[in-house]
Amino acid sequence: MEKRARVLIDCEDAKGLVYEISKVFYDRGLNIDNNREFVDKEYGRFFMRTVVSGLFDTQELLDTLKSVTPAAAHIRVIEPEDKKIILMVTKESHALGDILIRHADGELGAEIECVIGNHDTLEELVRRFDIPFFYIPADDMSREEHEEHVMKLINEFEFDYIVLAKYMRILTSTFVKSYTQKIINIHHSFLPAFIGANPYKQAYERGVKIIGATAHYVTDDLDEGPIIAQDVIPVNHRLTWRDMQRAGRDGEKIVLSRALSLVLNDRVFVNGNKTVIF
Amino acid sequence: MEKRARVLIDCEDAKGLVYEISKVFYDRGLNIDNNREFVDKEYGRFFMRTVVSGLFDTQELLDTLKSVTPAAAHIRVIEPEDKKIILMVTKESHALGDILIRHADGELGAEIECVIGNHDTLEELVRRFDIPFFYIPADDMSREEHEEHVMKLINEFEFDYIVLAKYMRILTSTFVKSYTQKIINIHHSFLPAFIGANPYKQAYERGVKIIGATAHYVTDDLDEGPIIAQDVIPVNHRLTWRDMQRAGRDGEKIVLSRALSLVLNDRVFVNGNKTVIF
Amino acid sequence: MEKRARVLIDCEDAKGLVYEISKVFYDRGLNIDNNREFVDKEYGRFFMRTVVSGLFDTQELLDTLKSVTPAAAHIRVIEPEDKKIILMVTKESHALGDILIRHADGELGAEIECVIGNHDTLEELVRRFDIPFFYIPADDMSREEHEEHVMKLINEFEFDYIVLAKYMRILTSTFVKSYTQKIINIHHSFLPAFIGANPYKQAYERGVKIIGATAHYVTDDLDEGPIIAQDVIPVNHRLTWRDMQRAGRDGEKIVLSRALSLVLNDRVFVNGNKTVIF
Amino acid sequence: MEKRARVLIDCEDAKGLVYEISKVFYDRGLNIDNNREFVDKEYGRFFMRTVVSGLFDTQELLDTLKSVTPAAAHIRVIEPEDKKIILMVTKESHALGDILIRHADGELGAEIECVIGNHDTLEELVRRFDIPFFYIPADDMSREEHEEHVMKLINEFEFDYIVLAKYMRILTSTFVKSYTQKIINIHHSFLPAFIGANPYKQAYERGVKIIGATAHYVTDDLDEGPIIAQDVIPVNHRLTWRDMQRAGRDGEKIVLSRALSLVLNDRVFVNGNKTVIF
Repeated sequence: MEKRARVLIDCEDAKGLVYEISKVFYDRGLNIDNNREFVDKEYGRFFMRTVVSGLFDTQELLDTLKSVTPAAAHIRVIEPEDKKIILMVTKESHALGDILIRHADGELGAEIECVIGNHDTLEELVRRFDIPFFYIPADDMSREEHEEHVMKLINEFEFDYIVLAKYMRILTSTFVKSYTQKIINIHHSFLPAFIGANPYKQAYERGVKIIGATAHYVTDDLDEGPIIAQDVIPVNHRLTWRDMQRAGRDGEKIVLSRALSLVLNDRVFVNGNKTVIF
Repeated sequence: MEKRARVLIDCEDAKGLVYEISKVFYDRGLNIDNNREFVDKEYGRFFMRTVVSGLFDTQELLDTLKSVTPAAAHIRVIEPEDKKIILMVTKESHALGDILIRHADGELGAEIECVIGNHDTLEELVRRFDIPFFYIPADDMSREEHEEHVMKLINEFEFDYIVLAKYMRILTSTFVKSYTQKIINIHHSFLPAFIGANPYKQAYERGVKIIGATAHYVTDDLDEGPIIAQDVIPVNHRLTWRDMQRAGRDGEKIVLSRALSLVLNDRVFVNGNKTVIF
Repeated sequence: MEKRARVLIDCEDAKGLVYEISKVFYDRGLNIDNNREFVDKEYGRFFMRTVVSGLFDTQELLDTLKSVTPAAAHIRVIEPEDKKIILMVTKESHALGDILIRHADGELGAEIECVIGNHDTLEELVRRFDIPFFYIPADDMSREEHEEHVMKLINEFEFDYIVLAKYMRILTSTFVKSYTQKIINIHHSFLPAFIGANPYKQAYERGVKIIGATAHYVTDDLDEGPIIAQDVIPVNHRLTWRDMQRAGRDGEKIVLSRALSLVLNDRVFVNGNKTVIF
Repeated sequence: MEKRARVLIDCEDAKGLVYEISKVFYDRGLNIDNNREFVDKEYGRFFMRTVVSGLFDTQELLDTLKSVTPAAAHIRVIEPEDKKIILMVTKESHALGDILIRHADGELGAEIECVIGNHDTLEELVRRFDIPFFYIPADDMSREEHEEHVMKLINEFEFDYIVLAKYMRILTSTFVKSYTQKIINIHHSFLPAFIGANPYKQAYERGVKIIGATAHYVTDDLDEGPIIAQDVIPVNHRLTWRDMQRAGRDGEKIVLSRALSLVLNDRVFVNGNKTVIF
């Protein structure tokens, strides 16, 4: 039966890679519906994303591709289907709400397994959409204890990504390392400006004329992970930092949803501390 | 001797094109420094731009590529060197000035053969840069007569593109057809809004909150040719149409220079009345 | 008791207006928390929006302001409280959803009296938020008949604005004239480009490099009413018109919500077919 | 004789200021052509810029305004005429060239007294415009010695502003303090991101998706002075840092010219380490 797959290849660069890979598709009579490559000259790294359709055996295709690419090549053949995600939130509804509406509309491209809040503020909103909400308060316990509760819950689910939709707690190294390249965060500034707490207040005090939002993978270094998407909003002297915070929310939710869409469509490669986006 | 070339292919889509073409490069041991393709599914059209380097005979490479692509394929193998351009202007200096400064800096990527003005306002500015300026007034003559003078002059030069840097006269069909896909214009609106005369006045009267500029190939249909680049600038009720005109100039010059850079680097394919830009 | 009001004045320009008006506030010992004026020199029209606080009698303040301004001055003294709105929708959920989330969050600054759909697609979503949804199908009836049903329903409510959140039917002159300066629409293009049906398809076919969205008051002339807010999104040759439509949705919902916020905060004056926005 | 002036007032906030000030204009029968105020609630500071026209004595107007405003009020009554500026440059021509073209066009609103370079690279370009160029090399001398030479030259001129049009040397505290609120710089990043050397390289290495430019007053703290204007440009993984540098130049020159225009039109108030811009 005809099927469709996204082929993602990420390896050391070498002469003839496009030829060798396209030959594999050609020999099997596959259609190339979409194809993009990029070579990072600085690090000698090759990235390719091809959407193929036709008659093929996924494992056989993967094995053959491995045989024509450098030894440590990272190759994935993904048959599109809805990914599974877990959302983590605190009190603000805008980023969560944007995702819930897209999900209700069937536009998100992912199943929401559950929403976890360190406050119960958003429980009512989530329940309106018949999605499980788990309230895991952090009172009277250490960061480590709280995360243990969260991880215990998370690990009951199968999931592809954890999305921090304005989750306002810093995660420990242990947590982050348990889900490498699986945690997506929205930071409410134009990184690397205003790292850390209350970026709108920082932006207000610095008197900037443009504020922004940044979606990124979460790594061990706070606010330093690979950036997926950014956007900006013009501001002026009339805005207090609360006004900036309010104005910034639209940017935050749009940037997070755009990043999520890129990730769910397998369009993002992590390249060291940067991303390649097709 | 090692050399470098931009290979541009534009043809009917067919299965295996990427394979066949990359095989040609592979068989000659060429390096692929950069590669982008696009298939227009609606019209079944394939576009590819590859930068190759290595030892090759340009004619032999071209012939071989023709032998592996559909019959009517449009293939070019271009060894990068400065293109030649002719500028046409009226009275406003901003778009011309931006190009002159880039040229003086060696950043333009083109030789300016001459500047032709239907007014002599800009003669002094052009002469400061030791570039020939020809004043061809349009007084007391028909549009056709004026263009005959202009074309007589133009045809004394070898050139790749005619750049209308705020040339404020409408060109006849005869003129346009003489230089197909060779005339680049900057229109001072966000096309297709405000086609025709005085777009800033139109924008002011319509009360828009954003104005723009559009660089496009000139075709027989006024302001309807394939768009290369566009940009926008926010405006508000405080601006008169003269203010909008002034504010719009920065957008105009930047968009024209960006479009010119794309064209001079052979990054633009014309696809019907649209463009594919790599 | 101390209170707060927005004073909106819109009148023929005259010498000394700022002085006369500020004297009224000064004589009553009112604080000016915020103040903006604009004079449209072309039409000799004065606009002023002042937020005052202190002890005052609303009617007395209004009467005094009338006595110091030109005869036909349009003056409002508005004590901020939630406005009331009616939403009209068809099948797409993004603009509606954005408003529902803001409403649930208490951020909208308006009560939603009801949602009216000419399809029942969005009924489930609206009901999740415990807001009345009325399905008024248009099958087997004339435009006029359908609107009669809609108007009968609308007129049962008290409301300040009707918001067309992607309501995909053209309204008759009768309908529009019944609610002058009370209907806000989101048009899915960068007006005045691509007036009429299917603007994304038009944009795709024209090959533009930027698409947009426009929120405007609805007047008798289709897509020609005073513009409140606009925004744009860059696109490229890779996007089909369906992709543009998808990408454009974020712009649509943000622009509509921004326009709605301006209107609900009494920051928009209609000035002929344009707007003054403070 | 009728004349026109910009009245700039910057003082501690107090009740009735708009009334008291507009009364001064009213009593003299002056027209208000343009008026904007702003109150910084956080610091209790009042800013007003009014363009008045009519018959008045400048000194008398100034004295009366002083008598109705708080003791330490900073009040200026400026009759518009071309300001005088000194440009400082290093090797890059884009920001300088943009200013030269505007100047040649009569659009700049300032006389260029001279251009000072710490390299002679741009001497030829400046001479084309018949503007004095002074080459003051920094070789074999301390920062202080070099600046002494520069200051000796600068102090021979009357001028309103020193514009650093990509002057790539750090200025000492002594230099900066000699010209408080008179030095305008263009920094080639979206401050406060990428303070210091080679921001494009920093941006490339951080993998940001947007780069920017910032025009600001120069203060003792490197890259920390009050921001006047900012703008951004989207980038992607295909750009090397050299490509970013090239792409960023357009932003730099436009932002610097926009800031310069604001400053020359007396539209910028410095408010602590921020700006109020009318």
